[in-house]
Amino acid sequence: MRVSQFFISTLKEAPSEAELTSHKLMLRAGLIRRLGSGLYTWMPLGLRVLRKVEAIVREEMNKSGGIELLMPAVQPAELWQETGRWEVFGPQMLKIKDRHERDFCFGPTHEEVITDVARREIKSYRQLPVSFYQVQTKFRDEIRPRFGVMRAREFMMKDAYSFHANFESLEQTYQVMYDAYSRIFTRLGLKFRAVAADTGAIGGTGSHEFHVLADSGEDAIAFCPDSQFAANVELAEALAPTTQRAEPAQTMQKIATPGQHTIDEITSFLKVSSDQTVKTLIVEGEHGLVALLLRGDHELNEVKAGKLAQITAFKGFASDARIREVAQCGVGSLGPVGLNMPVIADRAVSVMSDFVCGANEDGFHLTGVNFGRDLPEIEIADIRNAVEGDPSPDGKGKLEICRGIEVGHIFQLRTKYAEAMKATFLDETGKSQVMEMGCYGIGVSRIIGAAIEQGNDERGIIFPPAMAPFELVIVPIGMKKSELVKDEVEKLYTKLQTAGIEVLLDNRDERPGVMFADMELIGIPHRIVIGERGLKENQIEYQGRCDAEAQIVPLQNALDFIQLKLCTK
Amino acid sequence: MRVSQFFISTLKEAPSEAELTSHKLMLRAGLIRRLGSGLYTWMPLGLRVLRKVEAIVREEMNKSGGIELLMPAVQPAELWQETGRWEVFGPQMLKIKDRHERDFCFGPTHEEVITDVARREIKSYRQLPVSFYQVQTKFRDEIRPRFGVMRAREFMMKDAYSFHANFESLEQTYQVMYDAYSRIFTRLGLKFRAVAADTGAIGGTGSHEFHVLADSGEDAIAFCPDSQFAANVELAEALAPTTQRAEPAQTMQKIATPGQHTIDEITSFLKVSSDQTVKTLIVEGEHGLVALLLRGDHELNEVKAGKLAQITAFKGFASDARIREVAQCGVGSLGPVGLNMPVIADRAVSVMSDFVCGANEDGFHLTGVNFGRDLPEIEIADIRNAVEGDPSPDGKGKLEICRGIEVGHIFQLRTKYAEAMKATFLDETGKSQVMEMGCYGIGVSRIIGAAIEQGNDERGIIFPPAMAPFELVIVPIGMKKSELVKDEVEKLYTKLQTAGIEVLLDNRDERPGVMFADMELIGIPHRIVIGERGLKENQIEYQGRCDAEAQIVPLQNALDFIQLKLCTK
Repeated sequence: MRVSQFFISTLKEAPSEAELTSHKLMLRAGLIRRLGSGLYTWMPLGLRVLRKVEAIVREEMNKSGGIELLMPAVQPAELWQETGRWEVFGPQMLKIKDRHERDFCFGPTHEEVITDVARREIKSYRQLPVSFYQVQTKFRDEIRPRFGVMRAREFMMKDAYSFHANFESLEQTYQVMYDAYSRIFTRLGLKFRAVAADTGAIGGTGSHEFHVLADSGEDAIAFCPDSQFAANVELAEALAPTTQRAEPAQTMQKIATPGQHTIDEITSFLKVSSDQTVKTLIVEGEHGLVALLLRGDHELNEVKAGKLAQITAFKGFASDARIREVAQCGVGSLGPVGLNMPVIADRAVSVMSDFVCGANEDGFHLTGVNFGRDLPEIEIADIRNAVEGDPSPDGKGKLEICRGIEVGHIFQLRTKYAEAMKATFLDETGKSQVMEMGCYGIGVSRIIGAAIEQGNDERGIIFPPAMAPFELVIVPIGMKKSELVKDEVEKLYTKLQTAGIEVLLDNRDERPGVMFADMELIGIPHRIVIGERGLKENQIEYQGRCDAEAQIVPLQNALDFIQLKLCTK
Repeated sequence: MRVSQFFISTLKEAPSEAELTSHKLMLRAGLIRRLGSGLYTWMPLGLRVLRKVEAIVREEMNKSGGIELLMPAVQPAELWQETGRWEVFGPQMLKIKDRHERDFCFGPTHEEVITDVARREIKSYRQLPVSFYQVQTKFRDEIRPRFGVMRAREFMMKDAYSFHANFESLEQTYQVMYDAYSRIFTRLGLKFRAVAADTGAIGGTGSHEFHVLADSGEDAIAFCPDSQFAANVELAEALAPTTQRAEPAQTMQKIATPGQHTIDEITSFLKVSSDQTVKTLIVEGEHGLVALLLRGDHELNEVKAGKLAQITAFKGFASDARIREVAQCGVGSLGPVGLNMPVIADRAVSVMSDFVCGANEDGFHLTGVNFGRDLPEIEIADIRNAVEGDPSPDGKGKLEICRGIEVGHIFQLRTKYAEAMKATFLDETGKSQVMEMGCYGIGVSRIIGAAIEQGNDERGIIFPPAMAPFELVIVPIGMKKSELVKDEVEKLYTKLQTAGIEVLLDNRDERPGVMFADMELIGIPHRIVIGERGLKENQIEYQGRCDAEAQIVPLQNALDFIQLKLCTK
């Protein structure tokens, strides 16, 4: 492709709305343009990248037995009412009334529609298992769309749904999809991790998220470098300490700690380390207030806490006023001794002795506190976030924490939708059974933002070769003035194209610096520079996007050289 | 593809909702399934057809210099307010409010969005001309969605938009697009015709519709088989007769015609032919009532009538009550003699003499009426539909009339949108100029319905080879029982696949009749039948979808034979 026949439009500065690196670079490189809040036009250059991702997703879905179809974007409310999600889904669903005042939505997902297809089309176990997928524009009316395509309102998704005669079959397909997803992200050239995810209210047995690893990721992931273990921090179990609680060595003392509220303030004031302190959090649960004890250097995991029978539903932290009412002190002086409500301690707290905590009296803390002596032994649970260095729950090493961007999610839905919508089939004995169901999503457009978060430098985007809009760019120097340059550029361009290489010819006749900067910003992996000086010695220049320096290549070796580069990168 | 790994779901009977042949066949063949009114899921088989159409459209657009991008489906109201179309577009536009109560629509078309892109991105004449296109899901809230994908609410469209520094450049690109469209429909294997279309309120200089010819088409097209002339009947000029008006030969007489109102009744009662009668229609125009005279065998063309200065806007026919008020008679007795309002005669009427018309008195007609003697000479205009046998307006032969389904439309928009939205550029002299603009649409999903209207028989769909979901089907007879059949089927299947042929293997082990019927219904162009009896003589059977009989082919020639068939069909 010649730049003159294509449309490239780069910006020196990203619009101020962009916060995240990938968002800034996508705007600067002209991959996308904003139409409205959370609405982006995929410009020609960006669309090429999107199509490459789409193609790989499609190939791997087809290989895994997925059958492509295309459901409508606009869905009637009636289907969503069957599963109860019309009300439950919330304001993320873009609801629409048609000219006859009938209710529809712009599909945020398609479980209802595909289950409707399945219940009409699938009558017999002979038709099972079957996996359908589509690549489609979805809409979710995010309250605060941001980060460009990463949290856009309109986005492109690959959504797949499988139907099964029994759970074993679902588990098999689930594994096939897990493997397909791993191949997809590997082929895309992304550093990623599959992590166990919360199955939430659906209560299925299996769910994995696929995260592209990037420091800017919204999700924290706990993983074990020595094993396969990886889980969203929300879910990663913090094992009970293997150490025993030491015998009390100190007496409990009430110490004046005027103006000292936070763990940092207390540890510095009392000259103790934070793992000798206990913090007390009072939360609102389904059945009233509950106090939660955590080691000073640990953080509450609200997902885990919400699953405790004593809490059931985590409604938030108790207000200052409510705390003063029940404990007669401020938040910074709370402690478990003499606290009149259910108290649950984190596993790490259960082995502490001679610890520091608030005295339930403003301006005072207790030191040398011990369970069994100063306060009763209390209920223990895993309620904290796992941290670096924690033992891996699979017993195979220590956890590390990284951040990730969720780009895929696979889910054993079981019979939730099929039951609500009466999607049944006749089994071998002629008995009507409810189908088992799985769903498998990939955020196709989000992948591009995630890849750029992972691959960029001060000069711009570093695309994995499989996603780059073009494989190679030829930058001619002085093509307008030199017939020699023009001839050799055209020859090489044709030769590379004929060899099936996606080559971009920057024939804009701009200053070399402008062309180099644009092509680096756009993230083209390989660059050939052809100028008269080099040609006189039958030489051209090659530089990879990540190479520190250019390399001289004999003109006659250019094709072989490039082909080798394309294979090895 | 093996049928067991695909999803084929045919129906014996089409649901009663389907009226049109193509709609019935698409449902029966399982190409689409209805989700709601005007909403269809493209089932795996149908999606394959859709993708083939898409691919050909894309290839030809790319060849013509089109640059693909992808704009959001959801569009902010503000852009439509800039051009005034937010109010004008009417209830076909699906309007949406987001969670913040801001106005959006599900894009029915994208002139506003692309013009917004252009005005932001295009600054200089050096960037012009440029043509963008996309293949995208659109929504038009049809008041009565019907005919399946032919008039669906959600549909797939290829929409292209070109921007230009001047009109000459627009005209050039318009011609390039005209040629691209012609190639697209030719490659799709459709009988089609490009026809001059009404430029309507936009007032551009050029517009062509591309129609797939089919008796069930909604549009009537007048064309000249001896020349390039073709126009929507709405537009086709009916030339003035070259014959002179004969001298009066009869005296005017008032004849009692009790109970005779229609032209048919009058001609039969008075024993005259309909081309000796004149019918009088009273219509409501911008400035009041106007009487229009047409030869008894001709039909009023409302588009032409609406363009007359005396009418300006065609508001409909006058009511019976209004007619009685002004003419003191019923519709069936109207005539021009003594009628007190502006009267305009069609060109064909202007050369009539001794004609029959209503007497403006119930139960009476006049015969032997003549202009200049019995009533004044009156204003003449072209206000009728052209009919078969009319001279072609280009003077090169006689018109024929056929019916068509509009599948493409190209349009010189000129500066309508660019002016409203201030899409300007700097010309060579540094002066700011408004861009010229063209738009070019193809109803991608509609094409499939149109193709089936054109290609079908009592057994089902007859796809043009370029659109068929598979090129060839292998139907094995008794594969489960015979190892020989199984082996040879697998061998041939692999051989054909390796040769790059899209072959479907019907391995369902159904009765041959069921498999034959399904594959004919689906419209696979070529069929190979492999059974034990034939194999024992090293023979297989071939039958084309339109062939009356099967043909014996030596097994060892199968591939060559098929390749030849695929090339020549």
